[in-house]
Amino acid sequence: MADYQHVLVAHSEDVVRITMNRPQRRNSLSFEHLTELLGAFHEAAASGASGIVLAAEGPVFSAGHDFGDVSSRDLDGVRELLTLCTDLMRTIESVPQVVVARVHGLATAAGCQLVASCDLAVAAEEAGFALPGGKAGWFCHTPAVPVARVIGRKRLMEMALTGDVVDARTAAEWGLVNRVVPAAELDSAVDDLLARATRGSRSSKAVGKQTLYAQLDRPEADAYAIAVEVMAAASQTPAAQEGMASFLGKRAPVWTD
Amino acid sequence: MADYQHVLVAHSEDVVRITMNRPQRRNSLSFEHLTELLGAFHEAAASGASGIVLAAEGPVFSAGHDFGDVSSRDLDGVRELLTLCTDLMRTIESVPQVVVARVHGLATAAGCQLVASCDLAVAAEEAGFALPGGKAGWFCHTPAVPVARVIGRKRLMEMALTGDVVDARTAAEWGLVNRVVPAAELDSAVDDLLARATRGSRSSKAVGKQTLYAQLDRPEADAYAIAVEVMAAASQTPAAQEGMASFLGKRAPVWTD
Amino acid sequence: MADYQHVLVAHSEDVVRITMNRPQRRNSLSFEHLTELLGAFHEAAASGASGIVLAAEGPVFSAGHDFGDVSSRDLDGVRELLTLCTDLMRTIESVPQVVVARVHGLATAAGCQLVASCDLAVAAEEAGFALPGGKAGWFCHTPAVPVARVIGRKRLMEMALTGDVVDARTAAEWGLVNRVVPAAELDSAVDDLLARATRGSRSSKAVGKQTLYAQLDRPEADAYAIAVEVMAAASQTPAAQEGMASFLGKRAPVWTD
Repeated sequence: MADYQHVLVAHSEDVVRITMNRPQRRNSLSFEHLTELLGAFHEAAASGASGIVLAAEGPVFSAGHDFGDVSSRDLDGVRELLTLCTDLMRTIESVPQVVVARVHGLATAAGCQLVASCDLAVAAEEAGFALPGGKAGWFCHTPAVPVARVIGRKRLMEMALTGDVVDARTAAEWGLVNRVVPAAELDSAVDDLLARATRGSRSSKAVGKQTLYAQLDRPEADAYAIAVEVMAAASQTPAAQEGMASFLGKRAPVWTD
Repeated sequence: MADYQHVLVAHSEDVVRITMNRPQRRNSLSFEHLTELLGAFHEAAASGASGIVLAAEGPVFSAGHDFGDVSSRDLDGVRELLTLCTDLMRTIESVPQVVVARVHGLATAAGCQLVASCDLAVAAEEAGFALPGGKAGWFCHTPAVPVARVIGRKRLMEMALTGDVVDARTAAEWGLVNRVVPAAELDSAVDDLLARATRGSRSSKAVGKQTLYAQLDRPEADAYAIAVEVMAAASQTPAAQEGMASFLGKRAPVWTD
Repeated sequence: MADYQHVLVAHSEDVVRITMNRPQRRNSLSFEHLTELLGAFHEAAASGASGIVLAAEGPVFSAGHDFGDVSSRDLDGVRELLTLCTDLMRTIESVPQVVVARVHGLATAAGCQLVASCDLAVAAEEAGFALPGGKAGWFCHTPAVPVARVIGRKRLMEMALTGDVVDARTAAEWGLVNRVVPAAELDSAVDDLLARATRGSRSSKAVGKQTLYAQLDRPEADAYAIAVEVMAAASQTPAAQEGMASFLGKRAPVWTD
């Protein structure tokens, strides 16, 4: 396991828990923090675990980019930072594991982007979500990319233009998070959702998740062109064969991958 | 009318009712069943009816693919099956009639895909919706294509990754179905929605529906490029001319096509 | 300020109020009315204001195209009208100001399209929304373009195929409008939302809004390609530098553009 300064990584059973641990900086995403998070996701991806929880220490989930890091960078430097940040977001979508965000507090700007980029999200009632760049001087352009893809357009515009905090209940109504629970139930709700989302063949689910992200946001004919080929190929895998054989044989399936 | 083994087709007034009638196999979609459904939709498309209801006999709406059919197929054989299934789904979108799903029970995998592919859907309170491949060995890749286009991304991920059943009320909140009613009111709710959705000129509505599917999921400029050309051409049709003349003349319109 | 016949334009503080003032024709969008609205938006865009309110006089917000204007046009003539109308809708999306629709009554066809095209929308409880072409002879092809992009697909189909009026509460649940309030509170709700949506640097927000519309409806990788470049460039602007410097210096920001 790599030695991280800003990130805690814990393996337990089949789950890797990646915890942002830079509370004194509100878990803001400096170049080093992003690099460590990316490393932790790559480590988790290679671990053979079936699920990943992204959590955070301290009162805030994540405040987004670290202005102390950004403000001294020229255009190329910021471009490098945003490319790294985008790499992290898209890695969360492409790792073979199911990724659940455990959001206990405020998630703003790239912190909100993290929540939108995780496959699933569970929030405590105290959590809040915002794209605050819209009410300041540096608009939340990249955070708005995945947020726009999980909530409706008028709601995106409200978040992006006002910068106001959306409470957890509203975020659930808008589809930004899957569950809202009292803080005391946050861990059990995350565990429950993750347990249900990691049943079955891991290899099948990994291809499934990756294909979902490949087909989204495309005209339906293009999406079907992708999905038909993948699903036909997937039918010949041991997992698919076992799934069908166990169903037809009325016995419990045994997944080997 | 064709002679079907697995499908009932009934013409009444202006509506064609296509009923999956393979209850002993939970209306699963074998190659033969899909072929008959596709034939029934082509028959209905050519019938001059204004609406189509897709319903099902037995306790289940449809359980999706028939593993007894799939498990013996090689890659090319599954590809053929999925191509046929996709052809059915896209035919539902391209027939000139308004298609309403009447969902009285569980709709899973490609059965859920059928509901997502119909223009409109009415569900009984007992109905449920699931993409169960995600908790087994063969992921619901193609069913997720239209489901992703009717519900939000986080909700898609929850359905696709957990495989859990979403109840009818939740499906309505998520936009997967238009109405949820007690089972005893299902037929009247379907009839009411279909009656309202089939008013006006049939030829105008047919082009309207087909153009909607053509412009969806595209950048807005591309969508407008399609819609402007179609709408300009449509303005010169007898239906459009009658619509405008009757409105301006303060009289009831008479639709001839 | 231009001299308009059908449109009222009022500048107050930082807000331009554009009011459709053709109540005797239910604020229908004749070629002349569209031309004046487009002129008013161009005038507002150049004004240096931070926000625009689109409102309407009379009992109806807007009934859409003026059949008296359309019915006498040939295909090329309608195409010219629809191109002008599309130009207005896309101009609302591209002006640097935040645009809020103030919807006090019925918004139908291209009137509903106006609401969908504004960045934000506040409706009175009495307001209603419809795409009535679907129950008549000339389908609402172009109005459906932005409506499809703010509400879910099954709800779009219901609006487009039935032509029925959706009440304001339902429109808010579906994400077509941001707020619904009693008519007496409509102005204060519009002012409040607009005030919150126009805080911060105007130049930053203008690029932000324009980039949002550029990245929507594209595969996520394409959207990120746009957003990363814009956000990196934006980091070097005086507004971004002031935003970060004021945050790090724990002082209130001063926006110069």
